[in-house]
Amino acid sequence: MSSPIAGLDNMVHQRVRLGILTVLTEAERADFAYLRETLELTDGNLSSNIQTLEQAGLVAVEKTFEGRRPRTWVRATPAGRKALADEIAVLEGIVARVNGAR
Amino acid sequence: MSSPIAGLDNMVHQRVRLGILTVLTEAERADFAYLRETLELTDGNLSSNIQTLEQAGLVAVEKTFEGRRPRTWVRATPAGRKALADEIAVLEGIVARVNGAR
Repeated sequence: MSSPIAGLDNMVHQRVRLGILTVLTEAERADFAYLRETLELTDGNLSSNIQTLEQAGLVAVEKTFEGRRPRTWVRATPAGRKALADEIAVLEGIVARVNGAR
Repeated sequence: MSSPIAGLDNMVHQRVRLGILTVLTEAERADFAYLRETLELTDGNLSSNIQTLEQAGLVAVEKTFEGRRPRTWVRATPAGRKALADEIAVLEGIVARVNGAR
């Protein structure tokens, strides 16, 4: 039997990072507050995971000002979209195996 | 937009534990060596995650002897099968959202 989790990379599989990349695939870009509210995360948890994804080159962060109000935009890079596509392919395999076994 | 990761429980979503529960859904029970080889894990990583799942009531562990050779069997409990089914339902939602957005 082959490993159902071969190819699952924790960089993308980890719960919060999977959520961030999923939302960023649906929206071209999202701001920090939108991600925080949609994913129901604390500031610290979201910041830390965005930083991890940014350091891995999977998201790009842009800080803008609207008047005096700073706004942080996040978008998935092409590498981020590729990494999410790879994760989704593995998840589809797991879903098929579990549904086939039940 | 609703959170794609609402309902994802790290107890089951975590990579190694998701692998263990997936294999145990396909096989009625599996021994320690089989899980270790199939999932390509170290003894320590597998042991630690089996213990975590056992403490949560998601797997049951049975130690037997074949002659003098000890053998550790692991099987999913009904709660473990239910927890995996819940995880799979969330994963199906994520897969559908990502595939719908691309």
